Amino acid sequence: MKILIINSGSSSIKYQLMVMPTNEVICSGMIDRIGLETSNITFKTASNSLEEILPIPTHKVGLQKVSDLLLDPEKGVIKTTSEITAVGHRVVHGGSYFSNTTEITEEVKEKIKELSELAPLHNPAHLVGINVAEEIFSDAKQVAVFDTAFHQTIPVEAHKYAIPNFLLTEHKVRVYGFHGTSHKYVSEKAINYLENNSRIITIHLGNGCSMSAVKDGKSIDTTMGFSPANGLVMGTRAGDIDQSVIFYMVKNLGYTPDEVNSILLKQSGMLGLTGYSDLRDIESKAEEGNKDCQLALLMNAYRIKKTIGAYVAALNGLDAIIFTAGIGENSSYMRKLVCTDMDYFGIEINKEKNQIRSKELREINTDNSIVKVLVVPTDEEFEIANQVYQLLEN
Amino acid sequence: MKILIINSGSSSIKYQLMVMPTNEVICSGMIDRIGLETSNITFKTASNSLEEILPIPTHKVGLQKVSDLLLDPEKGVIKTTSEITAVGHRVVHGGSYFSNTTEITEEVKEKIKELSELAPLHNPAHLVGINVAEEIFSDAKQVAVFDTAFHQTIPVEAHKYAIPNFLLTEHKVRVYGFHGTSHKYVSEKAINYLENNSRIITIHLGNGCSMSAVKDGKSIDTTMGFSPANGLVMGTRAGDIDQSVIFYMVKNLGYTPDEVNSILLKQSGMLGLTGYSDLRDIESKAEEGNKDCQLALLMNAYRIKKTIGAYVAALNGLDAIIFTAGIGENSSYMRKLVCTDMDYFGIEINKEKNQIRSKELREINTDNSIVKVLVVPTDEEFEIANQVYQLLEN
Repeated sequence: MKILIINSGSSSIKYQLMVMPTNEVICSGMIDRIGLETSNITFKTASNSLEEILPIPTHKVGLQKVSDLLLDPEKGVIKTTSEITAVGHRVVHGGSYFSNTTEITEEVKEKIKELSELAPLHNPAHLVGINVAEEIFSDAKQVAVFDTAFHQTIPVEAHKYAIPNFLLTEHKVRVYGFHGTSHKYVSEKAINYLENNSRIITIHLGNGCSMSAVKDGKSIDTTMGFSPANGLVMGTRAGDIDQSVIFYMVKNLGYTPDEVNSILLKQSGMLGLTGYSDLRDIESKAEEGNKDCQLALLMNAYRIKKTIGAYVAALNGLDAIIFTAGIGENSSYMRKLVCTDMDYFGIEINKEKNQIRSKELREINTDNSIVKVLVVPTDEEFEIANQVYQLLEN
Repeated sequence: MKILIINSGSSSIKYQLMVMPTNEVICSGMIDRIGLETSNITFKTASNSLEEILPIPTHKVGLQKVSDLLLDPEKGVIKTTSEITAVGHRVVHGGSYFSNTTEITEEVKEKIKELSELAPLHNPAHLVGINVAEEIFSDAKQVAVFDTAFHQTIPVEAHKYAIPNFLLTEHKVRVYGFHGTSHKYVSEKAINYLENNSRIITIHLGNGCSMSAVKDGKSIDTTMGFSPANGLVMGTRAGDIDQSVIFYMVKNLGYTPDEVNSILLKQSGMLGLTGYSDLRDIESKAEEGNKDCQLALLMNAYRIKKTIGAYVAALNGLDAIIFTAGIGENSSYMRKLVCTDMDYFGIEINKEKNQIRSKELREINTDNSIVKVLVVPTDEEFEIANQVYQLLEN
């Protein structure tokens, strides 16, 4: 069956058409800058690779354009929209409602709308994508795959904050966790590879960064909480910070709360520390001797190391750590910093293996390392397609 | 020599008169509710224990009253104020200026005043205490002992936040850490006892709670940061929380930043979770089956466990963990929760030894435990007196 995967952002749509269960990708692409005169569209199949710039005023026009390309008699890959069995929508926030992939009903849409308050940049865009997809691919089942779902198994002592109870019961303030599709995908890959699922730590380092403690295949803790703002140092996000800094900036430095939030989300992290947000730039500057870049990488790695330690406590043991996503898969520099002086935990990486670049799952620990250190390329689109397929088959 | 120790709070003064180097306490007491009609004064010597309620309008009147009691021909313990060689002042915030105990000069007072912005509830009160003590005990040396000093050895990757650099360089926003006098005192006691100083984690659990990773006798990380608000769950303080919760409360729930700060400092922590702030009440309710109390204790312990793991990563090993302060010294319940399922780290406590109540340093681990688990009663007044004495002798 053919499954179309749609990831709608506030001004973009990423899409991928897959055949399941063979995992064949027959088409993929994206539209960005929706609403501007110069939207960029890409469309890639086995035989065609197309890039166009034209005005795409709305998500509806954008998805219609995708549909037109899919149906195009020359470049297209389907003959009618009814060839598509299901559309899988990535949805960032499923709150406490959804711990599994779910077929979209009016009730599900209501819940996604209700959760917009918790994910104002994402959930409204997902809803637009769902509504438009329902019109265009009217014969297909619409399915939601939630970023938060994998973390719904986190026990209450780890998902609750030490604040007055009414904030949880009335306002749903708690740890939700994000990147769940990626943490689930790479931990399952590792479990298959290791033939051991007991105690795994997943380290997702991309634009956003988060870690998860995975016990018997289930997330029991994660670094991102109520929103994707806290935890590790990220490209432009501060991650964890003493909350008193916020009140100090408002009271003593004259910022509004909105300004502080914007500084912490958009001008902090690696950008705030170095002036650069792309890790490749930061690494090359660090190698040239730039002290800010060296320090920022060290801070980043130090926080990851401490979280590994914290999750070893949560798991009372450790079988494997997994690096994934853009930085985790490609930065041997960051992996080395993280694994340095971690032999007390039984973590030792092999220098040569750490340098290998590959799209495959690989082991980079030494033969003596008690803990397996894996690099597992993540594939959120595949995971979404797979979850949609599983839902429809069962 | 006689050293008077003064700990001035916003509406209180604690004091203790000690003979050094013999550590003899010849008098101790406190005045609270300064500024009200019903201040409570206590004054305790070997032969007298006195408690009075009378109006104490200012710190100056309060310290004068202490001086009068010390000099009292019947109940007193000194004949003239000049018998007091030095007055040791506890000062909460020494910023980045003071990594050691320091004789107070006009310049030091200027710095303490400057740092009031970072410790608005404490440093102004300390300054009042210092100024009054200079008048009344004019022959004595005035010495400042800073809560932050012990943590000045924390390396930059652990004391810097991932926020724009100007916030550190221009506004001094960084991790300072608190309870330094206690972490220093108990870690030194443990080092003496163990004859091994390499890798220690100190766990100070009182009204405020914090932990420190101590390597070769020096603090290399601590849970409290820019202020004493974050880190562990405390009596009424939330400790760590995703910063987005603050912005959500301001934007969506209509609180002012001041109100959110007040909720996080005064209505959160164990109080917010259970309705009680005294751990003894919470433990007995938990034992009676109160679910909120059981959960709050579990959350508290879980965060301590994760911090132990994080600091094992920072230290790349672990020789001992130390429980101290009111809860750490007296709550076998909390110690047991923290040490449960921590055998992967080599932490195992002996149930019977954990139940022992004592004012002495004691080991509560099993004979097989790789890591020593110690209960070390803290004594911040002694530590202050000792540091003042060391400064004057050298």
